[in-house]
Amino acid sequence: MGLRIPYKEMKRIIEKALLAAGVPAEKAAVCAEIHTDSSADGIESHGLNRVPRFIDYVKKGLVNVNTEPEIVSARGAVERIDGHRGIGITNALFAADRAVELAGIHGIGCAALRNTTHWMRGGTYACRIAEKGFMGISWICTENVMPLWGSDVQSVGNNPFCISIPRAGSPVVLDMAMSQYAYGKLGVYELAGKMTEYPCGFDEAGNATCDPAAVARTRRIMPAGYWKGTGLALALDLAGTMISSGRCSHEISVEKDGSCGGCTQIFIAYDPDLFGDYKEILEKIELRLAAVNSAHPTDASRPVQWPGEGMAHRREKNLAAGVPADESVWAEVCRLAAV
Amino acid sequence: MGLRIPYKEMKRIIEKALLAAGVPAEKAAVCAEIHTDSSADGIESHGLNRVPRFIDYVKKGLVNVNTEPEIVSARGAVERIDGHRGIGITNALFAADRAVELAGIHGIGCAALRNTTHWMRGGTYACRIAEKGFMGISWICTENVMPLWGSDVQSVGNNPFCISIPRAGSPVVLDMAMSQYAYGKLGVYELAGKMTEYPCGFDEAGNATCDPAAVARTRRIMPAGYWKGTGLALALDLAGTMISSGRCSHEISVEKDGSCGGCTQIFIAYDPDLFGDYKEILEKIELRLAAVNSAHPTDASRPVQWPGEGMAHRREKNLAAGVPADESVWAEVCRLAAV
Repeated sequence: MGLRIPYKEMKRIIEKALLAAGVPAEKAAVCAEIHTDSSADGIESHGLNRVPRFIDYVKKGLVNVNTEPEIVSARGAVERIDGHRGIGITNALFAADRAVELAGIHGIGCAALRNTTHWMRGGTYACRIAEKGFMGISWICTENVMPLWGSDVQSVGNNPFCISIPRAGSPVVLDMAMSQYAYGKLGVYELAGKMTEYPCGFDEAGNATCDPAAVARTRRIMPAGYWKGTGLALALDLAGTMISSGRCSHEISVEKDGSCGGCTQIFIAYDPDLFGDYKEILEKIELRLAAVNSAHPTDASRPVQWPGEGMAHRREKNLAAGVPADESVWAEVCRLAAV
Repeated sequence: MGLRIPYKEMKRIIEKALLAAGVPAEKAAVCAEIHTDSSADGIESHGLNRVPRFIDYVKKGLVNVNTEPEIVSARGAVERIDGHRGIGITNALFAADRAVELAGIHGIGCAALRNTTHWMRGGTYACRIAEKGFMGISWICTENVMPLWGSDVQSVGNNPFCISIPRAGSPVVLDMAMSQYAYGKLGVYELAGKMTEYPCGFDEAGNATCDPAAVARTRRIMPAGYWKGTGLALALDLAGTMISSGRCSHEISVEKDGSCGGCTQIFIAYDPDLFGDYKEILEKIELRLAAVNSAHPTDASRPVQWPGEGMAHRREKNLAAGVPADESVWAEVCRLAAV
């Protein structure tokens, strides 16, 4: 607990661990950067912490590190890409870049990636699209991890949905899973012996509960907005399948495929300078964000923020002070890197 | 309370009321049908019940019934349309149809409608896109009606977001506002002296509450999924502004413009037969929906449903038994129709 590792050092060790697992050099460099960025942004669950499991999946043959994504169909502003169960990060970056390319030609572009693997942190790709000056919408159809509203068994994905808005400063990035709390987050609450502030799931008696330990037992995690969260998750699952012709949530078996093994991801990009008035639009966006920051706060010491604003602050701090790392996870990744 | 009006009769009277308010014949027929459909689908708040307010807006000059939507810019798969504050329903139908047209050419199409007025029920347009055999994504940027997370003043729209999936039977239609409960729904609870099942907002002390009367006083309605609901609402507001160059939530004044006066709406359509495998995709969709219906229910008498499934059942029932109508609203619309 409580380590802080310099950014470059964390990236170097992750890269070494990936190389040791057989990941080709170029891909290892890219993935190490993305994992380190996620930790630097404060999303440790999909940063350093996810490296050992990724390597485990590589060793088990659930991720093929030696394949490339393939554009299998292309018409108009849409492309379908087969990920061939290659590396989730590099596949998704490829697809996000294709969406940007298509948007550059058609104003809006859509890349549908199927048969891929876990993309780690969803916001990475919406952010990538924004950094290229485009607006991004993306989502993933995960395996069933959440009960549909009215069911007591896992029957829908949590299907993170992302929207990114480019601007002069760091982009606005919404990265929103459809469960109110991630299982990883509940684990943190449970370890600390804390209750969640709002119901995080259902207990054995079928009652809404703030007790993460009860939800760990029932696996009945709470959807964000109750019926609304699973409604949106299901609609995204169907839409992803319709565009990609890939797998729905119920077609992924974690046991056989690993988490998100063979899954579907959608990337939509829009060119905000399509009509030549990008400058005025950016001014409108800045006015809107200023209105957010000046909305009267419930707590005077905590100004209201827009999605991604806190993340930019965190990264700046963590680049200066070192990227936070869990001591045991760091030791494990160092072991995998044989250092 | 408790009237049931034959579908054709309700449509006829609404049409007459609209004609009496000066709505041109063709538009009156279309709007009467949409309002009646909404009531028939069980969405009375945006069906019959909204007719008097629409007519009030027409009389106040907030809606211009004699203008037409105008395509002001078009490039690639994207069009921007100025609604000239015409009738929200006919403007939005025009834009939804343009998105379908563009998707027919480019695979994916986007129509961005700005300077329009209230579209009534959001699901209408996603449904329209699906009925034409396309997949639809649409949303509206309303005026500020909900506090951003961390604020105690209305500072973001509830921005209904819709996804529709075409199929042989009635389409899957998600129509999801970003507040957990609509103000209209809370009024129903309050009248009945009932508490909501989950927190519907914050009371004067700043605590989450299930008391609709307290929320009517504070106007601090609960976002769906707490911080997630306002994050998504804000991202949709920014994205809508970026595509349309139209108004953000904070640029609409209900007092001056009426609810949603001058607002922005986005329509995205996708052609599911773009790659010639629509039949196989529809089969995958049906399997997914069957998996939804067979998910183990918490209550054995209530099978799990997909978004829009209950609506189709309701419409069938209401076409047979008559469309439900509130007695006083019906009397008011009859008065407006001078019958």
